[in-house]
Amino acid sequence: MATTRHSSEITRKRLINAAAEEIRRNGFRATSIDQILQQTGVTKGALYHHFSNKLELGYAVVEEVYRSHTLEGWGPVLQHAENPIDAILGILRRNGDRTKGDMLNCGCPLNNLAQEMAPVDEGFRARIEAVFQDWRNIIDEALSRGKENGTVRGNVDTEKTAIFIVSVVEGAIGSAKNAQDCRVLSACMEGLAHYLEALRPRISFRARVPEAAASG
Amino acid sequence: MATTRHSSEITRKRLINAAAEEIRRNGFRATSIDQILQQTGVTKGALYHHFSNKLELGYAVVEEVYRSHTLEGWGPVLQHAENPIDAILGILRRNGDRTKGDMLNCGCPLNNLAQEMAPVDEGFRARIEAVFQDWRNIIDEALSRGKENGTVRGNVDTEKTAIFIVSVVEGAIGSAKNAQDCRVLSACMEGLAHYLEALRPRISFRARVPEAAASG
Repeated sequence: MATTRHSSEITRKRLINAAAEEIRRNGFRATSIDQILQQTGVTKGALYHHFSNKLELGYAVVEEVYRSHTLEGWGPVLQHAENPIDAILGILRRNGDRTKGDMLNCGCPLNNLAQEMAPVDEGFRARIEAVFQDWRNIIDEALSRGKENGTVRGNVDTEKTAIFIVSVVEGAIGSAKNAQDCRVLSACMEGLAHYLEALRPRISFRARVPEAAASG
Repeated sequence: MATTRHSSEITRKRLINAAAEEIRRNGFRATSIDQILQQTGVTKGALYHHFSNKLELGYAVVEEVYRSHTLEGWGPVLQHAENPIDAILGILRRNGDRTKGDMLNCGCPLNNLAQEMAPVDEGFRARIEAVFQDWRNIIDEALSRGKENGTVRGNVDTEKTAIFIVSVVEGAIGSAKNAQDCRVLSACMEGLAHYLEALRPRISFRARVPEAAASG
């Protein structure tokens, strides 16, 4: 019984991963269920046991694949970052190096899906927006902590800044994809870095001064 | 003869305008030729007299409708702007007020088409990229003039800055469309305004001092 449930879970995961890759390459509407079945060797009956239709499979891709792909590079790093601006700059550098070629070819899967499906399907729109909102919240919270510990200027609107940062990253990837030119991505990341630098306090001060504390 | 050519031109223009609206609402692949014919009352024969296929009609939409829609708000203003930063801030404000509702519903037609068709059709990609490039050139040239007359900091990389500005505008519209929330657009425009303010020289100086010149 446990083995059956286990293998059923594996089948489900394989279907979702294959669908995630197909949607990433071709968009949702051009993705064919037959292609996914052929690729995974899963029967149509087994697929419809897990997902009542293609839309439901697409929703699972957003929630179980694109969500983690989008947030995993940001959440764990920013959650423990003492200096959120340094941390965001580091994330942008790392993501740029890691995904340049792939982003140029296909863009950001989550954003592509947003542009394709948001206007025509509320189920997609709301699920995609929930991921974007969680991404913004991660940045917002990190910047708020930075304001408290003095690494971010006190008058920064952390919510609006988080909205801006996420939009710039998505706009940059979209522009680079159409230009087929990674210099577009670099120029945008440089612009965002300038913006981020301006969020630091004019005169940097340290909340904790270990020497002074030790001697006091 | 002149009248025939004139009415043929009118028919062509009507087809392009109807296609531009259909593509804006539904994307290129979901746009149906029959719908355009029905809407315009043009015969299939007349359409194929002007465009050998749907793709060619789509290309004409980019070059004759989306190009001017995209550039008309930027070119004439920036061409004669003495202070490009003030001018860009003014454009962002005006565009924001004018197109907020429409942008929320459908996003930016040029960018939607880029995201849909750039990965699958080089003809679309290159034509769309040419519009983005002209848009960047308009900003680049204005910022360069600003460097010369002292309204833009001397160490600003005008080409990269232009790439950044265009990408931010497109990213902002895309984010707002998925969020269905005009506060997302406002937050991005505010972020971009902060970035633009930082491009001004630290101590503003005027290249021309009329009083001094008159008394000299």
